[in-house]
Amino acid sequence: MRKLLHSEISGLRLNPDDPALSERHPVTLILHNIRSLYNVGSIFRTADSALLKEVVLCGFTPHPPRKEIDKTALGATQTVPWRYFHKIEDAINTLKSESNKILALEITDEQRNYQSITTGEFPLCLVLGNELTGIDDDVLALCDGSIEIPMYGTKHSLNVAVAAGIAAYELVSVWRGSYKD
Amino acid sequence: MRKLLHSEISGLRLNPDDPALSERHPVTLILHNIRSLYNVGSIFRTADSALLKEVVLCGFTPHPPRKEIDKTALGATQTVPWRYFHKIEDAINTLKSESNKILALEITDEQRNYQSITTGEFPLCLVLGNELTGIDDDVLALCDGSIEIPMYGTKHSLNVAVAAGIAAYELVSVWRGSYKD
Repeated sequence: MRKLLHSEISGLRLNPDDPALSERHPVTLILHNIRSLYNVGSIFRTADSALLKEVVLCGFTPHPPRKEIDKTALGATQTVPWRYFHKIEDAINTLKSESNKILALEITDEQRNYQSITTGEFPLCLVLGNELTGIDDDVLALCDGSIEIPMYGTKHSLNVAVAAGIAAYELVSVWRGSYKD
Repeated sequence: MRKLLHSEISGLRLNPDDPALSERHPVTLILHNIRSLYNVGSIFRTADSALLKEVVLCGFTPHPPRKEIDKTALGATQTVPWRYFHKIEDAINTLKSESNKILALEITDEQRNYQSITTGEFPLCLVLGNELTGIDDDVLALCDGSIEIPMYGTKHSLNVAVAAGIAAYELVSVWRGSYKD
């Protein structure tokens, strides 16, 4: 077993001008009031890898161009479609008008497991909230539901970029029907 | 739908002295030459949430006590068992002697999907390598195999803490037999 060379991996990836990049998975991440440039950059990188449809930045979430985001995103701000809305209400209304289902990644009284999503629920947007305070109830009221990642230990939450990655790859896996092959 | 209160969530989590915390999932993360204190802290937080058996820190990976790790880990360095080995060879030999299978999370010529793990392969250790250079071939030679997370876009890799989270939750899900329910 040996690690693939950079040149070999490059051959496995899409070029930024590859038409296949337009066939993105029908999953959008909505980042509301995320504080950390590092988390935003890391989420862009995940959105590239998981070939997500879009990243939507809202509220005080920092948005490109910011060199700190670009540094962490390793260029993914150039390859992932993104939009910025000052008000998350405008973002959610726009995305609903584009036929998306809006789910919050939050611990609510709905308590639906992140692995319960079915293919009929796409296209789908996942709302990610502030690192400390999560998603406010007035934003939850605009969502069609919520999902959560089980916390088996003592703590209350995962890092937001880690949680986004776990949920995004699970949704992509469901969409691609990996478990039906 | 409303967000659960802090007091309600606390009631759903284990206390640090709960006996259930000793029944950890048979998954260990081995961090070799990870540079970022932020990534180490984030991985500790994931290991708490996923109730992983242990975090093993090797090489120049920073290890507790370091206030920057504790800050990102939000106390998880106190709730997750961990060990430090200067040499990863010693870590892998020790973990093999404890009946673990050792898999690298790396892009190799083996190209085995992270969702292909079966319950017979536990207890299992996942080796995570340096943020820039990944896992060296001499370390891969000590591993029993490798798994990778598919990269559907243009980039070569995910942030290491995000990748650890995606893989860890997938392994825990397989172990818990979620897909068999």
